[in-house]
Amino acid sequence: MAHNKEVVKGVEWRINVGDGSSERAGQGCIGAVTTRLAMKVYMFVKKAWEVGVNDPRKFIHCLKVGIALSMVSVFYYMKPLYDGVGGNAMWAVMTVVVVFENTAGATISKTINRICGTTLAGFLAFGVHWVASRAGEQLEPVIVGVSLFLLASAATFSRFIPIIKARFDYGAMVFILTFSLISISGYRIDELMCMAQQRIVTILIGTCLCIIVSLTICPIWAGQELHVLVTRNLDKLANSLQGCVGQYFSHSEATSDEESKKLLLGYKCVQSSKATEDVMANLARWEPAHGRFNFRHPWKQYLKIAASMRTCASCIDALIGCINTENKAPEHIKKNMSSISLKVGAQCANVIRELAITMRNMTKSSKIDILVTEMNNDAQELRDLLKSYPNLINPSSSSHNAQETQTEVVANMEIPLMEIIQVVTIASLLIEIVARVKCIVKGVEELSDLAKFQPATCVKSKQHTMDNKISPEEEKDEGAINKLQIV
Amino acid sequence: MAHNKEVVKGVEWRINVGDGSSERAGQGCIGAVTTRLAMKVYMFVKKAWEVGVNDPRKFIHCLKVGIALSMVSVFYYMKPLYDGVGGNAMWAVMTVVVVFENTAGATISKTINRICGTTLAGFLAFGVHWVASRAGEQLEPVIVGVSLFLLASAATFSRFIPIIKARFDYGAMVFILTFSLISISGYRIDELMCMAQQRIVTILIGTCLCIIVSLTICPIWAGQELHVLVTRNLDKLANSLQGCVGQYFSHSEATSDEESKKLLLGYKCVQSSKATEDVMANLARWEPAHGRFNFRHPWKQYLKIAASMRTCASCIDALIGCINTENKAPEHIKKNMSSISLKVGAQCANVIRELAITMRNMTKSSKIDILVTEMNNDAQELRDLLKSYPNLINPSSSSHNAQETQTEVVANMEIPLMEIIQVVTIASLLIEIVARVKCIVKGVEELSDLAKFQPATCVKSKQHTMDNKISPEEEKDEGAINKLQIV
Repeated sequence: MAHNKEVVKGVEWRINVGDGSSERAGQGCIGAVTTRLAMKVYMFVKKAWEVGVNDPRKFIHCLKVGIALSMVSVFYYMKPLYDGVGGNAMWAVMTVVVVFENTAGATISKTINRICGTTLAGFLAFGVHWVASRAGEQLEPVIVGVSLFLLASAATFSRFIPIIKARFDYGAMVFILTFSLISISGYRIDELMCMAQQRIVTILIGTCLCIIVSLTICPIWAGQELHVLVTRNLDKLANSLQGCVGQYFSHSEATSDEESKKLLLGYKCVQSSKATEDVMANLARWEPAHGRFNFRHPWKQYLKIAASMRTCASCIDALIGCINTENKAPEHIKKNMSSISLKVGAQCANVIRELAITMRNMTKSSKIDILVTEMNNDAQELRDLLKSYPNLINPSSSSHNAQETQTEVVANMEIPLMEIIQVVTIASLLIEIVARVKCIVKGVEELSDLAKFQPATCVKSKQHTMDNKISPEEEKDEGAINKLQIV
Repeated sequence: MAHNKEVVKGVEWRINVGDGSSERAGQGCIGAVTTRLAMKVYMFVKKAWEVGVNDPRKFIHCLKVGIALSMVSVFYYMKPLYDGVGGNAMWAVMTVVVVFENTAGATISKTINRICGTTLAGFLAFGVHWVASRAGEQLEPVIVGVSLFLLASAATFSRFIPIIKARFDYGAMVFILTFSLISISGYRIDELMCMAQQRIVTILIGTCLCIIVSLTICPIWAGQELHVLVTRNLDKLANSLQGCVGQYFSHSEATSDEESKKLLLGYKCVQSSKATEDVMANLARWEPAHGRFNFRHPWKQYLKIAASMRTCASCIDALIGCINTENKAPEHIKKNMSSISLKVGAQCANVIRELAITMRNMTKSSKIDILVTEMNNDAQELRDLLKSYPNLINPSSSSHNAQETQTEVVANMEIPLMEIIQVVTIASLLIEIVARVKCIVKGVEELSDLAKFQPATCVKSKQHTMDNKISPEEEKDEGAINKLQIV
């Protein structure tokens, strides 16, 4: 397809030039293809570079893999134990390549899985060999074959069971691999013992190296990643909520620039990070105590909080749908509800932001109760405003009584329900959002109990210094939020 | 913790029995622990069995892995080419264990990745060796070491680039593995050639075996899985939508049984299947034509449809939130809106079900346009009903004019806005859902164009027979839907 296009382009160029020869056209065609190819490569490299620049720890991880592999190779250059690729050196190298992952949790999980899977399979294969060798020459291949078939099938099936899939998937694979290798190798038992010992030693060397490099050079902790992800998503949720309420009721053009649009759509990040959160929570449980997190930090609670956040995000999605509906409310109606709706939106956002601060500092917030009360009060105020709206005339009774003329008299002061419907829906969604924000508050409170957060007073000075540490990215976000708030 | 509990239980038991000795208490304690352990094992086995019973293809997959491994081992029993685990046999075994996956797409993807990664790394390592061997004895280890470090780092980095991560992640890992193994093996070039040849042959044997077993014995196609998942989710979405509107407006107790509740929460499946869909769509592109799907079936379009379905599910989530709110509308208000709202809900569900049928039969639907028009008409009717509601009296003007007494006169026939707010919100969310269902319709129409679905008339007889084929699970669903519809 692309080639055809180029040919057409080449032809056009020849026709336009008029006096050009066919050869020149061919050259032009090849030139265009080359240019396009170069352009594609350039775009790919640029994109790849951006991936690294956005998270420089990815560059560091690559260097770490390089270092670990170089160390393994140096180790084997120093001690020439190997006899080619078939030797034991390969198990150490293979271990480093296969086990070394981006996060500490993943590396530790794979390490433990590899060691346990290999050991268990080794012992079992040893037992099967022992039985088979005593069963006579004719039965031996049958016993080995049947045991291989049964154990491989069973181990494969275990990988479908959710709890094993989540934690020991790799271990089950290594188990099958080791068992099959030993089963079909047909060693004598004394050779087997020697080989098993060597293999376990080389695997231990590889795994130790991986863990040392992974945990000492700029470690990336899955737990920390999960913590940051959930905390950031809280901020994004707050910005989205406040942004969309603000945009609707103040309907300023200033909010339509790129950055504010990105802020408005932050709730989509909340909706789409479930898979990442699940993986991170699963890996975090393998990690030792690090930073402010203990060994048995309640990582599962983060998933609960994230689930509450997603129900809130669903409501924001519906809210944005209602804002963009065709049936717009007239300005004077919006104006009536504007100040209190903006207040409810801002209060919800404040509560969510306070939760983000609570989680970031890992301290019990002193303000959260006040903020929740304020949010509830504002929601009540919104309800009261709706209540204070004059009543709808009941169609059945008004048509059946004699006061029709009176109704007609007041008709010129009435608001059609159709005009108010958008505002009413938005108000009612806001009230629903308040209820869902309370679920997030409950989730974070449970977390603060489970993880034994300190009260804010004890760590006020620490909190103060942490508040001042804002990364450049967060600073950029703050700027955009301020812009939204001014609007 | 569990152990402590058991101890306490043991003690209690002794106290209760009264005349028991400490020994008996100890035995009781051990007995209780054993019972509990047995119970846990029993529960685990039961759960595992259910995993398989719910999808018997999982059992078949396990048998397939067993068969493939047995075949490899038989192959090497027949031809004693190997010299222990270090020999070439291990590469075939390792390939089978590592490459054999549940779906055909995953197996093919890993196969191609493994072959390409190994070959590319082999050639590069060969080149580096050639250069290093010409550079003199002192420079050789430096050149080999530096190239290993650089290439391993670069390949590791490439695994972070989204497009490579999605398609060639395993290939990049195999590349690093092969390159490191050859680099640090220190072979002479003639040995290297021989080994490379042998390794590629054994890997080819392993991969061919995997592909043959995977594709011939009850193959599980990722594409087919994605197709079924999206189609089922459409049905679930329709049931959820119709169910929750039905439950609200007919508020019958009959809908509160387990099965109907499960149907109501079907939209949550839609929200949570993004990760699975992404993986399946990625694997499906590796698969050859199978069943009714061509090689370049537009799998990406399924992701678009699923995204539209998720926005619709968000609205249903908000709808359910509004239904469960504290501020309930009184019955007479609900009754007024009931029939038309139920109609809109049922129409939306019909459209979604027709889309599911379209996708299931892979035919252009003849009814969809009519159904969409009907849905639009019903939505318009709902809007008209809202319009027909009498107007709200403008608070500002009513308080400033002299007709206050007249307003008071009609007060006893009025409906407070607060009472109608829930119904109005639900109506307005229903109208929003109609808009979002239209997005799904658009998505499915694009799919039917891209995948060149035949018009329904051409395949009417085929469609008829397919309609009659309902799996037991679907039958169960149908029963529950009927129950909901009766309600």
